[in-house]
Amino acid sequence: MKRTLIEQTVGNVDKEVLLKGWVRIIRSHGKLIFIDLRDGSGTLQVVVNPQISGEAHQEALKLHPECAVKITGLVKKRPQKTENKELATGDIEIEAKQINIIQKAETLPFDMGGKDLNLEIPTLLDHRGLTLRHPKIAAIFKVQETVVDSFRQACREKGFTEFQSPVIIPQGAEGGSEVFEIKYFDHKAYLAQSPQFYKQIMVGVFERVFTVNKTLRAEPSVTTRHLTEVTTLDVEFGFIDNWFDVMDMSEYVIKSMVDSVKSKNADILKMFDASTLRVPAKIPRLKLREAQEIIFKRTGKDHRQDPDLHPEDEREICKWSLEEKDSDLVFITHYPVAKRPFYTFEDPKDLGYTLSFDLIGRGAEWMTGGQRINDYNKLVENAKKRGIDLKKSEIYLQAFRYGMPPEGGFSFGSERITMYILGLKNIREASLFPRDMERVDERFSS
Amino acid sequence: MKRTLIEQTVGNVDKEVLLKGWVRIIRSHGKLIFIDLRDGSGTLQVVVNPQISGEAHQEALKLHPECAVKITGLVKKRPQKTENKELATGDIEIEAKQINIIQKAETLPFDMGGKDLNLEIPTLLDHRGLTLRHPKIAAIFKVQETVVDSFRQACREKGFTEFQSPVIIPQGAEGGSEVFEIKYFDHKAYLAQSPQFYKQIMVGVFERVFTVNKTLRAEPSVTTRHLTEVTTLDVEFGFIDNWFDVMDMSEYVIKSMVDSVKSKNADILKMFDASTLRVPAKIPRLKLREAQEIIFKRTGKDHRQDPDLHPEDEREICKWSLEEKDSDLVFITHYPVAKRPFYTFEDPKDLGYTLSFDLIGRGAEWMTGGQRINDYNKLVENAKKRGIDLKKSEIYLQAFRYGMPPEGGFSFGSERITMYILGLKNIREASLFPRDMERVDERFSS
Repeated sequence: MKRTLIEQTVGNVDKEVLLKGWVRIIRSHGKLIFIDLRDGSGTLQVVVNPQISGEAHQEALKLHPECAVKITGLVKKRPQKTENKELATGDIEIEAKQINIIQKAETLPFDMGGKDLNLEIPTLLDHRGLTLRHPKIAAIFKVQETVVDSFRQACREKGFTEFQSPVIIPQGAEGGSEVFEIKYFDHKAYLAQSPQFYKQIMVGVFERVFTVNKTLRAEPSVTTRHLTEVTTLDVEFGFIDNWFDVMDMSEYVIKSMVDSVKSKNADILKMFDASTLRVPAKIPRLKLREAQEIIFKRTGKDHRQDPDLHPEDEREICKWSLEEKDSDLVFITHYPVAKRPFYTFEDPKDLGYTLSFDLIGRGAEWMTGGQRINDYNKLVENAKKRGIDLKKSEIYLQAFRYGMPPEGGFSFGSERITMYILGLKNIREASLFPRDMERVDERFSS
Repeated sequence: MKRTLIEQTVGNVDKEVLLKGWVRIIRSHGKLIFIDLRDGSGTLQVVVNPQISGEAHQEALKLHPECAVKITGLVKKRPQKTENKELATGDIEIEAKQINIIQKAETLPFDMGGKDLNLEIPTLLDHRGLTLRHPKIAAIFKVQETVVDSFRQACREKGFTEFQSPVIIPQGAEGGSEVFEIKYFDHKAYLAQSPQFYKQIMVGVFERVFTVNKTLRAEPSVTTRHLTEVTTLDVEFGFIDNWFDVMDMSEYVIKSMVDSVKSKNADILKMFDASTLRVPAKIPRLKLREAQEIIFKRTGKDHRQDPDLHPEDEREICKWSLEEKDSDLVFITHYPVAKRPFYTFEDPKDLGYTLSFDLIGRGAEWMTGGQRINDYNKLVENAKKRGIDLKKSEIYLQAFRYGMPPEGGFSFGSERITMYILGLKNIREASLFPRDMERVDERFSS
């Protein structure tokens, strides 16, 4: 018999099917044994009744959670009032005729049967090869898949070309110190913290480009927001009329992504109690100084001289945005020149401040972007002023020597977006295999 | 006036448009100046006639190739017999009214105006920030975009979930020596040569998975086929009936990819004289020993005792495949156990040989795959036998302790596929920013 996927059983009432999957939960109820069976397409209830098949019942007694099994049985409508509304297959169940163990599972180190998997982060990660199988954990990465793919989709709709940006780079791209060094044969090389230089080069090639990359940062602290390895989504495009083009494009992309998650993963948002993300047609835009003024008026805390928002400011301005503008997201613009990378464009009408923005949502930074300096001389001068060495960046400089039009772009991490959309507390929950200074798969022994 | 993209001009005959782009070629013909203008959407001819606009003509005299410009003008049908069939816009031209330089270009170090950019590889790469702009070079990466995206598309059609696999790993995954080491705070870590362990873990989560990753290999030789950094396309899936499921799936995916390139990039295939790739409904399948027998019969060279195909054998078997089976591709199966990684499944009906395959095309390896060992004890035993240390791979082992069904997968590099589809001679041509032991953007001085 050909295998039927669990999601296809719904259309097969009263037919016999062959299912393959993992035992998620197994429990006895009098003489009956109930199995929640999981495969790549969903979960479904199997009833093993010794009066229907003694052989299947014998085999079911040997099962543990996570055993891989093959089950033949009849698809039946569930008796009235025993339907499970939380399952897509909740109106039906399988009456088992035959059960075979494909591959046994050892006894689990903890119970995986609950709706939530309530484990501390270290335990969750020490058993990552197992804990990822919990439906609510796996669901996080279905959302992440949507985040990444809807990003690509949105870019394509706007005429962008996808390219592959390198991981190995000749020097710390932006002169940062938090860069990983690698032994590269008889030389030193480094791991890319961002595809910034390469996406700017690619503007000269395809005009509009995007790229999805692993970016690496030797983040020397352990926080709930930082990882050493992140999947970064990047956009860059040329021939902009002005920097609003960049912010408008980032608005379009983030809204497309949020809409995609809302439509494709509505069930998961519900599971995480996270269905309420408010994104209006036009996301509010405030200069940093305007935001600080609002915060001062609302809280009495005077951060109006500070060059950046404090974490508490980010939370406060998001409160304001939700209360006053019905928006969970808010753009903060015009960060001071000194707080932005050397390639950032200074606002000629507001000297000392840049044509740059952060998108803040639910109390934290979602995205960063802006217009870049496109004039070769100005760029080189600015790098020098900041002590940034571009001598190993000849191919980057070439892009500017040969007619770089006004351009800009933006960047964000897929883990952060996933985390904030789902309201997760720790970014490690939003990374399949999170890396930080204490852990690469396993925790380093000290 | 709103900007018109070059590809949109075709529908705007007799209308005035504003174009933005780069000067690709500029040449005088009597009093007329002809500009080939390029933007992200295409190339088009602009005619500057001093009798139409003296001002535009004055400005045109200042232009160099690669200047970024803004041109206003009238879209006109070209005079009969002056059409250019090689351009999508070859039936029209722009009569310039106004020209403005947006950003000047320095004098180019070499002529970029020809149909081909005939540079030696070192020169091509030393000027990568510029040479990528040549339409025939850029076209290679349009094909690569199709290769990567059609891979994802094909996987999605078959119910696969995309996941992100890490770059930083705790140890050389398969015990290989060609692995890059990184300083990871006070520890050592390594760069992933493949997502193998992680994709196998993910079979337990989503059953069917795929992933696109940078993989890194400290390849200590400089050849025309190897790079240290590659964009790898990986598939893995569980609950297979047998290993033919794996080969069938790889056949489906590669055929989808080739078909996508043929339909989306027909013009580029033509440009590279590469339109003739033959892929039949069923790609021929030969055991390694059968292939060696065929080669012996055809050439008299006896490699029947060798554990692998020599490069000359790969070329010969491709010749056979094309002549006898009308196929540019051929599967070679049943490599000896010792020649395959420790997790490869041995054929119980043909001991000493594995249920593994390579896809060979146009004389070289395109893809590799097979069924994996899914039994925990057998896997651990095999690793031990090969001297592979799995003590830092606890989360990998978990996947096998808890019910891993029969599974398999395959893997290939996007650069190689791009290279072989287009018939390029050197893999460096198929990588935007190729890295090898002598070069990371710039060549290391020795």
